[in-house]
Amino acid sequence: MALYVQKFGGTSVGSVERIGLVADKIKSFRDQGHDVVVVVSAMSGETNRLLSLAADITKTPSPRELDVLVSTGEQVTIALLAMALHERGCEAKSFTGDQIRILTDSAHTKARIKEIDVDAVQQELKAGRVVVVAGFQGVDEKGNTTTLGRGGSDTSAVAMAAALSADECQIYTDVDGVYTTDPRVVEKARRLERITFEEMLEMASLGSKVLQIRSVEFAGKYKVPLRVLSSFVEGDGTLITFEGDSKMEQPIISGIAFNRDEAKLTLVGVPDIPGAASRILGPVSAANIEVDMIVQNVAEDNTTDFTFTVHRNDYHRVMQVLQSVAEDLGAEAVRGDNAIAKVSIVGVGMRSHAGVASKMFDALAAENINILMISTSEIKVSVVIEEKYLELAVRALHTAFELDV
Amino acid sequence: MALYVQKFGGTSVGSVERIGLVADKIKSFRDQGHDVVVVVSAMSGETNRLLSLAADITKTPSPRELDVLVSTGEQVTIALLAMALHERGCEAKSFTGDQIRILTDSAHTKARIKEIDVDAVQQELKAGRVVVVAGFQGVDEKGNTTTLGRGGSDTSAVAMAAALSADECQIYTDVDGVYTTDPRVVEKARRLERITFEEMLEMASLGSKVLQIRSVEFAGKYKVPLRVLSSFVEGDGTLITFEGDSKMEQPIISGIAFNRDEAKLTLVGVPDIPGAASRILGPVSAANIEVDMIVQNVAEDNTTDFTFTVHRNDYHRVMQVLQSVAEDLGAEAVRGDNAIAKVSIVGVGMRSHAGVASKMFDALAAENINILMISTSEIKVSVVIEEKYLELAVRALHTAFELDV
Repeated sequence: MALYVQKFGGTSVGSVERIGLVADKIKSFRDQGHDVVVVVSAMSGETNRLLSLAADITKTPSPRELDVLVSTGEQVTIALLAMALHERGCEAKSFTGDQIRILTDSAHTKARIKEIDVDAVQQELKAGRVVVVAGFQGVDEKGNTTTLGRGGSDTSAVAMAAALSADECQIYTDVDGVYTTDPRVVEKARRLERITFEEMLEMASLGSKVLQIRSVEFAGKYKVPLRVLSSFVEGDGTLITFEGDSKMEQPIISGIAFNRDEAKLTLVGVPDIPGAASRILGPVSAANIEVDMIVQNVAEDNTTDFTFTVHRNDYHRVMQVLQSVAEDLGAEAVRGDNAIAKVSIVGVGMRSHAGVASKMFDALAAENINILMISTSEIKVSVVIEEKYLELAVRALHTAFELDV
Repeated sequence: MALYVQKFGGTSVGSVERIGLVADKIKSFRDQGHDVVVVVSAMSGETNRLLSLAADITKTPSPRELDVLVSTGEQVTIALLAMALHERGCEAKSFTGDQIRILTDSAHTKARIKEIDVDAVQQELKAGRVVVVAGFQGVDEKGNTTTLGRGGSDTSAVAMAAALSADECQIYTDVDGVYTTDPRVVEKARRLERITFEEMLEMASLGSKVLQIRSVEFAGKYKVPLRVLSSFVEGDGTLITFEGDSKMEQPIISGIAFNRDEAKLTLVGVPDIPGAASRILGPVSAANIEVDMIVQNVAEDNTTDFTFTVHRNDYHRVMQVLQSVAEDLGAEAVRGDNAIAKVSIVGVGMRSHAGVASKMFDALAAENINILMISTSEIKVSVVIEEKYLELAVRALHTAFELDV
């Protein structure tokens, strides 16, 4: 008899039929004697429908009112799911973020959870009820409705699990777990039974869309065992766990992540003076543009080349910013390329194994793939390559690191 | 500088364009220096959309969850209207029933308002903001979302006006006021500048669909001046007021109401024994059927005929109930007719004028319309006639009582 917090996303509750399937699944857990708290998103399409109503009214909607608006999406789902559970003879009660009291700060549309009051939830569980919670939403000190931003329902679920000391937080999605890489690119990709939080963080931040990075961080911080599994297919999914938990020896590499959404920019011939980097990146960050990789080589002839990557959508804006920076700094030129891709190998095992990076470079060289940038961390090595080589690179690395099925 | 509570129904906020028009109207009041609290319904169609989702899940939805579900409709509207006001440079803030704290009892789907906390609203008004309130909804002592039942937004508006001691509660609808009778039936019907609460109550309960009877009762109880006016056409509408307010002499008859939704049933040859009436109506009320008019004549030959009317939808059910009642009582027969209509003349003036009823009967007789039942109160006379004569009767009475334009 365990306590599970189960989260079902928009696709999983996208129609009344699917809500019925979710109710069936929850009931089967209840029938086994487990306690269940369910966190749900808005039905797929609903949030966009609401946002487009707002967009028809104003280009600059008040964030407070936007939260009042979009939080109705989850509220619809909790009511419908509670009804579907009742229909199956399963006692259940719905709660909005306000009713639970998921207390957040007042940063509308991107609020952070400060505290969760679990008294009411625990009473309902004791009374034998399934507790159905609206994800993505909370309430601030003054009683204003807030939302946690896109993907916030995952965070709601993890936070509920942490507050309730749940045995497991189960995130149901449309994939059946975390894979060694995207199965649409590599046929031989396989589902991981386990992955560490650190690896998952790297995988998530590098473009594996399975889990929101924020919820993984949250789960890591509060040591909530997290499991990703499919709403539609039976299976054990992937357990995201702590390094120490694993009894098996770690494989060197757990997975290969990639990202096509980047562009790279280089400032050529930057005078090698103190503060040059901040004079370059200051204006970029002032324009609210996030920078991913940054590479600068040792200076030759008192000048250096400074390269960094940004989201591809920001490419043209950054170009403009850099033109004036270049003038200002007396740099030679600005160069850019938005037909690039980033490929990363991730694994806690590489800490104790030398030669992982060189094995990666060898595998790419064997396919004649030129490496444009390199960046490393304790548990990952990332390279930037020409976008056209992306699939080839991922497949080659998947084979080289013995990840193929 | 007055304080107005303005209520806009579903049709008035049925699209983003119409929400824009409502915002324009509110802004024009603000520009004149008035304080405005707006109460809105769900966008037309939205409540039915939500109910049909629930219906696809279960035939017996939990009333608590139904309230969680449908209350999202008004929540969407308050957010959109607040945005539209902002867009027009008009400061505004939305409130759900819970946020205001419109405290109700726990009778889900038909809750009654117990108390309204106006502190927050008054602060916002003082700060120069329009307060946008979700109608139709409240919250019970335990924090459960409740709804007031169909038409509850009118009641929310009147209750807000009472709690705030507003100068006027303005109900915007798709008609431009209260008419002497339905203009679709009588071309010469005219808008009333004023009508008393008592008359309005009789008009509303007799089938004039302009205002929910409950909100009129509420307004009368708390002496809230109520005005009905059009969202779409400029005009003063109709002020619903207290008898003493009127400086003019009251006309004898203010209006003619009618209702096609009734059916009549007669138990013929009921033994004239004490308790017969309750033995007839007891089972009817036990079957949750509401009875409207009741007529019983003095007994002859120790038997009497007992006639009453019910909503036409209940006709066949009541027939069944009466069959067994008739056997039980030893009555001769049960007769029924569901092709009837009720026509009523309403006016506080009739209190001081004799002969109003006979004038009514004369007017009907002149058109050869047979009267099937009669029932009177202090300010109205109702007759039941064959349905096919309805329009003719209403027009004849409208002329006879000098209501024609």
